[in-house]
Formats: sequence, structure tokens, C-alpha cells
Amino acid sequence: MKDVTDFDGLEVGYDIPALPGMAEAEIQTPCLVLDLDALERNITKMGDWAKAHGVRHRVHGKMHKSVDVARLQERLGGACGVCCQKVSEAEVFARGGIKDVLVSNQVRDPSKIDRLARLPKLGARTLVCVDDLANVADLSEAAVRHGTEIECLVEIDCGAGRCGVTATPEVVAIARAIDAAPGLRFAGLQAYQGAMQHLDAYADRKAKIDLAVAMVTEAVEALKAEGLSCDIVGGGGTGSYYFEGSSGVYNELQCGSYAFMDADYGRILDADGNRIDRGEWENALFLLTSVMSHSKADKAICDAGLKAQSVDSGLPVVFGREDVSYVKCSDEHGVIADPEGVLKVGDKLKLVPGHCDPTCNVHDWYVGVRNGTVECLWPVSARGKAY
Amino acid sequence: MKDVTDFDGLEVGYDIPALPGMAEAEIQTPCLVLDLDALERNITKMGDWAKAHGVRHRVHGKMHKSVDVARLQERLGGACGVCCQKVSEAEVFARGGIKDVLVSNQVRDPSKIDRLARLPKLGARTLVCVDDLANVADLSEAAVRHGTEIECLVEIDCGAGRCGVTATPEVVAIARAIDAAPGLRFAGLQAYQGAMQHLDAYADRKAKIDLAVAMVTEAVEALKAEGLSCDIVGGGGTGSYYFEGSSGVYNELQCGSYAFMDADYGRILDADGNRIDRGEWENALFLLTSVMSHSKADKAICDAGLKAQSVDSGLPVVFGREDVSYVKCSDEHGVIADPEGVLKVGDKLKLVPGHCDPTCNVHDWYVGVRNGTVECLWPVSARGKAY
Repeated sequence: MKDVTDFDGLEVGYDIPALPGMAEAEIQTPCLVLDLDALERNITKMGDWAKAHGVRHRVHGKMHKSVDVARLQERLGGACGVCCQKVSEAEVFARGGIKDVLVSNQVRDPSKIDRLARLPKLGARTLVCVDDLANVADLSEAAVRHGTEIECLVEIDCGAGRCGVTATPEVVAIARAIDAAPGLRFAGLQAYQGAMQHLDAYADRKAKIDLAVAMVTEAVEALKAEGLSCDIVGGGGTGSYYFEGSSGVYNELQCGSYAFMDADYGRILDADGNRIDRGEWENALFLLTSVMSHSKADKAICDAGLKAQSVDSGLPVVFGREDVSYVKCSDEHGVIADPEGVLKVGDKLKLVPGHCDPTCNVHDWYVGVRNGTVECLWPVSARGKAY
Repeated sequence: MKDVTDFDGLEVGYDIPALPGMAEAEIQTPCLVLDLDALERNITKMGDWAKAHGVRHRVHGKMHKSVDVARLQERLGGACGVCCQKVSEAEVFARGGIKDVLVSNQVRDPSKIDRLARLPKLGARTLVCVDDLANVADLSEAAVRHGTEIECLVEIDCGAGRCGVTATPEVVAIARAIDAAPGLRFAGLQAYQGAMQHLDAYADRKAKIDLAVAMVTEAVEALKAEGLSCDIVGGGGTGSYYFEGSSGVYNELQCGSYAFMDADYGRILDADGNRIDRGEWENALFLLTSVMSHSKADKAICDAGLKAQSVDSGLPVVFGREDVSYVKCSDEHGVIADPEGVLKVGDKLKLVPGHCDPTCNVHDWYVGVRNGTVECLWPVSARGKAY
């Protein structure tokens, strides 16, 4: 057995799951594995779509939390920058060299606002969302104090039912306040419909985005009447980008999951009624797991449980196998139904996680694999950056 | 605003959520907070129970993954050592000074077996579970190679349906093989019934443990007839320890959640029909969150979503409040129903997580609080140690 103990002082099996150059079979489980060929094809495909439709793609970094993936999205997919959901995440991307970072969320805590106002000093264009007039003065005061500029998007709740205002007069009032506030710049609108992304039927998703487009169009026109133009009208996810991207009013997409795919997203249907993970996007992210017990004839126990993934959107699916299935998840174990008893202790399975975002957030590393060999080990750079 | 930027080079709001000495109100959210008084009372109470009943308590470190909490359990609760589920976790505890570590799980991967066999060199008594004859030779070979001793418990599946053998002849066969193998020592039985811990009714839980006790008693007697004695008969959790602890056959408890409590465990009932979080155990673990948007009159949006917790066992509960409730969870947001509109942006809420184990595994730090002041900042030492 190789005794590998140096990769910047990190130990395989303790700190890290693998080392570049290793055979895929030697990867320590459970861990996240990226099929680099599939990942690159997904990234290129979405980049090409955005380019062909004349919209920018601000990739959603909250999904992967990885500077390396974000850079690949810039290089292969022509991404104009990233969005993320937390100031501490934005700091990771800015420190990692991403020059255009949107916190597509509200920032209200005084300490977080202060950190946000310092972000431009790291060399990044800094944008944030606003849904409350009271926030404008706080953001302005911090930007002035640090001598920086924060660009602000007014967030419209176009159906997700979380943050955001719902009436055009509110949008205009907040936009005017931003425009008038020192240290701030009104940059446009954030209108992401998160709640519809996972509706199975294409027509159901389209109906929801039609409503969003109508709200956004009304807001853009009302702002125009006030002399306020929107540099950015942002939104769109993996289940809807073609709607926003060809709406004529959105000009920036914010897709995340397309790059990795997951089991829950994969089940939604395209315009032709096909699952989006059977043609539109490839599974590039896997949770690699090993069989560690098979003391009952018809079930195997694997080493990937709740601490290796999030099951909020359902259990993982065993990739490429019809004969076995992941049927139960406890803290450190997964139960694999193996009716014909085909699995052996030590066998490895590639699981497609139910939900990629919170699954990636549990892990410290991505193991990038090509042709059966570990090509790279990328940190989940913003893992745990929840502040 | 205080610009706190040095705690071994860690930055508040980026690397860490708080600093010792800070007021509770300054803690960055979302983060895990420990009520140190409640934690200490829980730990002392369980320790006293075990002592009074003449059983040892090997605390389950997989719940908290913290060397600091494990040491507190040794000091205040008289814990005889820890159990955990992964070799990489065991390494964290051994490196942290815990001298008696059981991996209460199967270890089958050759690389992990090799690491396990090296664990005694860190100064820790090393124990592991076995449910397959084929594993004995591998463990023995590694122990001999490293000149160490691995103590082995035969794992009985007494109802959880995961790892473990179910028939006494299998137990005896594996025990004999262990006893005969160089580098190994037969140390007893592991019989944890994980599946019944969350049954609400005391009588239902008792019925399940009665079955487990019968299986274990039969195994202990069969082993005795072969001249094999059990130093350890281990099992028992927060929902059942009084059954195993007074069974006369178990001699080591393995409770985890009692120390922190969570919403799912809290709902089960004691012998008198009272919830166990209303008297038996106190909530000591909280997920602190802030309201970050309140653009709709009847709902507030907080900053703790799926990346700050695991919702596998249900949503978190707002502690000490009847007027508001956590009703929906997405990646970074929680929706708080606030029918009377009592919450304001910036308000903090203490959430009792649905399931403590996988929630703790998402976080890097515990903020220990007493009397409104941050007293300590403890790393989740084995966070992400899943190998």
C-alpha cells in the first residue's frame, strides 16, 4: 500500500480523499467526484446558449462554492461573474480572483454590511440586492465610510415567496433611494423565481416565468419613466433559463445546478417531455461511496449517509445501475437494496445526490476525474461560509 | 463597530462566528450556539445515572464531533471514552487526547484498516466492530504489520437493520476467529438498536429493547460456553439507555444526543408520557439565526436554510416562542410564519435543529455562551471527517 502523506501537508483519508495522479479506484469514500469531461461540456453548452441569445451568464457560485469551478465557468462558459448568497462567500470568490460578484440576497446585519462595503477593496465589482428602503441608508453609510461603491439591484419577489418586493411602486421607491444615496449605484433588478425551477412540466414552469416577466417588464418601464435604467435584469435558473433568456427583458442569467446536475433537478422535463438529465445536461457530480457491510443477503450497507449529503429533496440515485437502489439514509450509512445480491463489500457506487447545493456544502473537496485518473483536487472554497 | 480580526488569525464573520468575551448579541449568524449551563447539566445528569446504575458511559462523539465536548463528558460525566463512526473521526479524538476510542462501525477499506491499525500509536486504546469473518483476517494482518493491537466487538444487528449479524452462531464464529487472530483481541459485543430510538412511546421502545436484550443475552451465554468473555457489551442511546443500562447484560452505554437535544428527539415521551425535552433533558444546542427580510406582513425570512442544518428529521423549532414558527427551508433561507407581524429585520431567533448530528456536521464552530456572553469557541473538530 502506498503511504501517501504529503499534499501541502494533507493526509489522504484524513484531510483529503485523494491525490492528483491516483487511480479512481483509490479514492477514499465517501467523497464528491467530478466527471471533468461532463462538467466541461455542461459549462460550454450553457455558455454557448447565453452567447447565442445575447445575454450574459452570471453563474451561481452558491451551488458549487468553488473558485476553481467559477474560473472554469469564466474560461469555458464566458461567465461575466458570479452570484452567491452570503457576504462570506463573496469574500471567498473575490479573494480567489473573481472580479464581478453579486450577493443575490439581502445583507442587513451591520457587521455584514461593513464587510460588504470593503469587498471592492479586494478588486471586485460588488453588487447586492435590496428589498427594503431602510437598508439603503445602512449600505450607503458603509460604502461612504470605506470610500467604495456598492451597486444595488432591487429584488422583486416574482413568485418564490422569500425576499423581494411585489409591487412596482415599491421597486421604484427603493430604486430612487438607491440612486440618490452616496456610495451606492442603482444597477437594476433581481428577479429570480426559485420556487418554480423544480416543477416537472415545461408548460407549468413557463406559466410561472410568464408572470415574472410581466412583473419585471412593468418595473423596467416604470423605472425608465423615472429616468432610471437597468444595467442588469437578472434571474433564471437551470429549469427556466430559456424563458428569461429569450424574454427580451432579462439580460443576465444566474444558473447554478446545470453544471453538476442532481437527481431532483434531473427529473424535470424539457419542452419535448424528456428528463433534463437525459440529453440537456449530463451528471457531472457524484457522491462516491463504498459497500462496507453485506450481512443480509438482499441489502448492502454503504458509507454515505446524512453526513455526506443532504436528502431534503429526496434520496440519491445509484448512477448507471438498474439492479440496485439507495433506499434509506441514516447518519453515516446508506441502505442499498440489492435484491439479487450482486454487490460485494468494497464495491464502489456512484450516487447522484438528491440536491447538489447543500450536498456540496458538506464536503471539503472535489475530486476531479478524467479517464479513470484523479486529475485535480479542488477545495470547496466557500464551504461553511454561511455568514 | 469593533473591528475584530485576530483569533489565531481568524476573522469574525469570515472564518469564525464570534470571539470569546463578545456579547451574545454580536454573534454572526447563522451559527451553532451552546448553552453551557444546560450542556453541563445534561452531561452531569447522564454521568450520574450511569454511575448509579453501575454501567460505563462511552459517549457518542459522532453526534458532536468535538474534542472539547468529549473532554467535558469525561470530566463532568465520567465518560470512559468515546465511540465514533469513522476512522478519520477516531483519529481526531485520539489526536485530541481521548485515550479510549471505539469505531462503532465496520471498517473494510484496506487503507482505512491500515489507518485504524496505526491508531494505538497515537496513545489510544482502539476498538472496532466486526460483522463479517472476512474482515478478521484483514484487521489482524494490519495490526501485526504495525505491531499494534485492535480490540474487536462483534456487531449484532438487534433491530436497526444496518450492519451486524443476526444469529448467535454467527456471533460465536466471528468471536472465535477474532480470539484466534494475532494482533486482535476479542472485547465483546456491539448491539445498538438505532431504529427504535425515535419511537414516541416509551412502551414501544421498551418492547424493541427487550428483543435486543434477549438476543444479546443469548449471545453472551453462548460465548461464555466457548470460554469467551465480553469485557464490553455496548449499546443504548438517548431514547433507550435506561433499558440497556438496567438490563444486567449491557455494561456500556453509548448516548450522544442527550447532551445537545434536538427537536426530533425532544418529541419522544418518557415513562410518564412527558416529552423528554421537558424535564429529562434540556435544549443545549441552538442554531442562531437573524431575520434578514420582512417584505411581506405575515412572514419573516431568516438566514438559516439547508446549508446551516439538516432537515432530514423535520424542520427546526423556534425555541421559547409560540407566536412565530419556522415553516419552510430553502438553501440559504428559512421562512418564519409571523402572523401578527411581531418580528423585525435584525431580530435573532434560537432554533432547535430537527436533527443535531448532521446539523453539527455542517458547521465549523460551536459558540459557547453563558449569561449572555461568549465564553468559548470550540471547533467542530471532526467536521467533515467522513472517511
